[in-house]
Amino acid sequence: MKLLNSINSPADLRKLPCSELQELAVELREYIIQSVSKTGGHLSSNLGTVELAIALHYVFDTPTDRLIWDVGHQSYAHKILTGRRNQMKTLRQLNGISGFPKRDESQYDAFGTAHSSTSISAALGMALAARLKNENYTSIAVIGDGAITGGMAFEAMNNVGMYNDINLLVILNDNDMSISPAVGALNSYFARLMSGKFYATAKNVGKTVLRGPMLEIAKRFEEHAKGLIAPATLFEEFGFNYVGPIDGHDLESLIPTLQNLKERKGPQFLHIVTKKGHGYKLAEADPVLYHGLGKFSPEEGIKPAPVSKPTYAEIFGNWLCDTAAVNQKLVGITPAMREGSGMVRFAKTYPDRFFDVGIAEQHAVTFAAGLACEGLKPVVAIYSTFLQRAYDQLIHDVALQNLDVTFALDRAGLVGADGATHAGNYDMAYLRCIPNMVIMAPSDENEARQMLTTAFLYNGPASVRYPRGAGVGKAVHQELSPLPIGKGEVLRRGQNIAILAFGTMVASSLSAGEELNATVINMRFVKPLDKALVLEIAQTHPFLVTVEEGTISGGAGSAVMETLAAEKMANPVLLLGLPDKFIDHGDVNQLLAMHNLDKDGIITSIRKRFGKLGN
Amino acid sequence: MKLLNSINSPADLRKLPCSELQELAVELREYIIQSVSKTGGHLSSNLGTVELAIALHYVFDTPTDRLIWDVGHQSYAHKILTGRRNQMKTLRQLNGISGFPKRDESQYDAFGTAHSSTSISAALGMALAARLKNENYTSIAVIGDGAITGGMAFEAMNNVGMYNDINLLVILNDNDMSISPAVGALNSYFARLMSGKFYATAKNVGKTVLRGPMLEIAKRFEEHAKGLIAPATLFEEFGFNYVGPIDGHDLESLIPTLQNLKERKGPQFLHIVTKKGHGYKLAEADPVLYHGLGKFSPEEGIKPAPVSKPTYAEIFGNWLCDTAAVNQKLVGITPAMREGSGMVRFAKTYPDRFFDVGIAEQHAVTFAAGLACEGLKPVVAIYSTFLQRAYDQLIHDVALQNLDVTFALDRAGLVGADGATHAGNYDMAYLRCIPNMVIMAPSDENEARQMLTTAFLYNGPASVRYPRGAGVGKAVHQELSPLPIGKGEVLRRGQNIAILAFGTMVASSLSAGEELNATVINMRFVKPLDKALVLEIAQTHPFLVTVEEGTISGGAGSAVMETLAAEKMANPVLLLGLPDKFIDHGDVNQLLAMHNLDKDGIITSIRKRFGKLGN
Repeated sequence: MKLLNSINSPADLRKLPCSELQELAVELREYIIQSVSKTGGHLSSNLGTVELAIALHYVFDTPTDRLIWDVGHQSYAHKILTGRRNQMKTLRQLNGISGFPKRDESQYDAFGTAHSSTSISAALGMALAARLKNENYTSIAVIGDGAITGGMAFEAMNNVGMYNDINLLVILNDNDMSISPAVGALNSYFARLMSGKFYATAKNVGKTVLRGPMLEIAKRFEEHAKGLIAPATLFEEFGFNYVGPIDGHDLESLIPTLQNLKERKGPQFLHIVTKKGHGYKLAEADPVLYHGLGKFSPEEGIKPAPVSKPTYAEIFGNWLCDTAAVNQKLVGITPAMREGSGMVRFAKTYPDRFFDVGIAEQHAVTFAAGLACEGLKPVVAIYSTFLQRAYDQLIHDVALQNLDVTFALDRAGLVGADGATHAGNYDMAYLRCIPNMVIMAPSDENEARQMLTTAFLYNGPASVRYPRGAGVGKAVHQELSPLPIGKGEVLRRGQNIAILAFGTMVASSLSAGEELNATVINMRFVKPLDKALVLEIAQTHPFLVTVEEGTISGGAGSAVMETLAAEKMANPVLLLGLPDKFIDHGDVNQLLAMHNLDKDGIITSIRKRFGKLGN
Repeated sequence: MKLLNSINSPADLRKLPCSELQELAVELREYIIQSVSKTGGHLSSNLGTVELAIALHYVFDTPTDRLIWDVGHQSYAHKILTGRRNQMKTLRQLNGISGFPKRDESQYDAFGTAHSSTSISAALGMALAARLKNENYTSIAVIGDGAITGGMAFEAMNNVGMYNDINLLVILNDNDMSISPAVGALNSYFARLMSGKFYATAKNVGKTVLRGPMLEIAKRFEEHAKGLIAPATLFEEFGFNYVGPIDGHDLESLIPTLQNLKERKGPQFLHIVTKKGHGYKLAEADPVLYHGLGKFSPEEGIKPAPVSKPTYAEIFGNWLCDTAAVNQKLVGITPAMREGSGMVRFAKTYPDRFFDVGIAEQHAVTFAAGLACEGLKPVVAIYSTFLQRAYDQLIHDVALQNLDVTFALDRAGLVGADGATHAGNYDMAYLRCIPNMVIMAPSDENEARQMLTTAFLYNGPASVRYPRGAGVGKAVHQELSPLPIGKGEVLRRGQNIAILAFGTMVASSLSAGEELNATVINMRFVKPLDKALVLEIAQTHPFLVTVEEGTISGGAGSAVMETLAAEKMANPVLLLGLPDKFIDHGDVNQLLAMHNLDKDGIITSIRKRFGKLGN
């Protein structure tokens, strides 16, 4: 690591002769493999952007030039080159550096990213700010071929077309695969753009045949003639100067091309082709497996994990296949999260009923609404944090029309290493204010399956929120039986204090309740809340406690208080849940303990609030 | 109205000979003008789609063929032709028919619309449902040139590209104007497509020059050759068969073209050109003025309204100009709502600092975040209901990075004639669960100005939610002075009962409080809530009442209860606000009274809850 060790900032990088950059790329790639093997994290995508990160910091004057990594899970090389090499060992751990660019973390992180397709919007804002301030920096968005299919990227490109005098560079990092393989018309289009053969042939045609009168025509219709010679019309229609595709691992192409683009005025679009996992054979061979991963041996690669408790995503995937087998109306929809959502087997078994719509949450939900109008029963599998992207569609297209759509909300609550950007802390609050919604939170795996069946059989919009990773290890019964809508379950009867627990908080609440001899309820439904049970419990217990893995502000506990008020009750209530602040990455159990949401924290909080009654 | 009176369903329409349709269009246009002049509603857009509605129902077998009107404010001709002619006099009124397509209202309304850009997603869902069910109906989306720039329309088109065997027809109704004139690259592109001259020239070129070797090339590169002959590549890249542009007022073109498209398999794209306000000279001359309007005389047109109380949108527009004059860092952003948001004067006075980004709420908010990163102070003017479209961007790009963006939330609370689709009932709930947000609700016009200044000067994300239309008529002071963050205002001191009122509910609460001799608080801030004041009031009043123009579930009253719980208080609380159901169109004051949110309703509710203490 002779070269890499000398680089503590992009200024150091720029001192290197161009001839040494290839060697630096080798070292950097090796550093990333070693580092990720010890911390876990994203691998394939970062191996794909080593040369790009070097070239960008070498050619551009970062941080004066603004560099935005869309999604940002491919920013490790960037982090290492911008002074965070030694912090890579803390990646994604409590108090360590983030797995994504973060403004608080470095001046080189011009814009925090994590959710897809935001980079062109932010870069356009920065570019127009430069114009207003009479500054000369360039704003650069690096966006993948998956992320660019997200609607807001298109909204941004449409807006770019209004400005022909800004210093904006969009780099399409085309590796033909987001987390799942990319889908849709745009990706076929990229494939055609990328096809070396076609590109070469077209160029030859241009050289050899266009002469005489046709040359005149080509001039007259210059932009569409470009569409003939290099089929780049789409981005040119958006007002960009399109360059590419070029090999994104070839520094000898990348650097002069970027130098050239740096000098040009107006919106520039560079199309590069890279390979996920480049330079690490195991990852090249299976970039999906090596997308996001835990610790591993760089030499031996990822070993099959010993069989352990199934994740909630697996519980969902199994339920989906089992239900599809008995109900022909079930269709499954994912916005580009086939693997993460546990839908691989369903996709293979029922290809006609599986719809991967791309990174397109808004479309996914309204598309589901359209299917539901025709009597099908769509199941939208989506992470809690990504449903935020389709909030209006859920309200305006599904809930308002009371359509029969099931939302399987994965990664609800704390998400661990991905941190604040991916937090599933808000869904109970943002969903329960919407009329017609049914919201469930399972306390264990078997209940998750029951709730999915409940949501599916319910003729209206219903959601089941379950956490990332594995649950408590409860055996899952194979029958597909629903739960009664809006009914909670009394787990134990105690005295004075009743703990009303939601979802993942039921287990620790039950342990706490046993120690405190408190009544403990598995509420099951955030909406409709079990009003009769809440009333009965309020009448028989002077003190109530609510516990949820979600923000307290407007959350499930708040729903309990509203019900008490509606029932003319006024018991003192202790609301336990996540505080009103963004919570950074870290181990979920550590974070729960920090926020008093483990057994001891619940006991301590109750005793603090209700004194010796909590004994 | 000889012809029109005979048509009570599309089946009646289809009995007419083709030769009479032009006369029908004349009658239908006249009917719309007369009808809207009596009820108010959208005019320009509906005059633009008369021939299209006739042609679609004439050619296609509705309701078996599914017809979706994007946005849907252009669906009056469709409503009249589908059995609702006599109900047009109840349009947008309490218990009358909706101003938008609505599934509950008619089997011909295949999908409820109102927010923009949903139609292709829904139609694709219906088209794939047909394929799964082995049915043969065609799904049709009619979308304007403004709506098609919304990101989700692109997401949908990208997804369409995966299916070459579906019965899907997208009709681009190109009138080069959404509510504000359309903007962006795509609209320039449409303008080029539309340019008759260019189109004709290109066709001539195709006919006269392409022979011999060039014809071979044209065949080899067929799709890109199409890009030369008719510059339609963009939609063809998305997998559509593109036809157009054709004159959307010419039934002799429309009907055979639609008949032709009906017979073709795979996704079809028809580009028609229409004129907003077509056939009514006053509306043709000023389609923006005649976009959405109240009652008027068809002969004399819209008369300037007598000077009355300014609307909140005007208060905002004046504040924006006044603040821009003293602070160079202010920039204003609208997602295609320049007129509605009161930004016309700002746009004219400060063109470099005004950004109309098109119908692109997601982009608008992240674009603002990019500007804020550079030290500018963006003000995003957006309707409460449309901010739902940018919820994730608000969370992930603005609030998480604690960026200095001001949200001017117009149309918060009940919106009247637009109804449930446009309800601004949820913003207090969906915003207050997000960390870092400041949320204010003014009780009058002067306070709105103070709050806008407060939000603007606050160095972080802050929002001011204000209602549609005019306020109480309070004089507005010209100084630009902020309010203290998180402080409420005691309006009167009474006994036993304290009414904590938010925003628009302050005036009626004060009247009620005077009658009940209750303490009345103007809370001003939904977040941060004035905890000290809530605690003091709770300690000095046994009974509390909260009143808000927003959903009770997770709303401002719920925030008060959380604060009480955190402060170890347990006063009985009565939560007044909007119920957990979608509320249809109707006069705002009628709707408020129906939901006990006028003075009498508040008094009655308090007496009912707290008995004679409420005296």
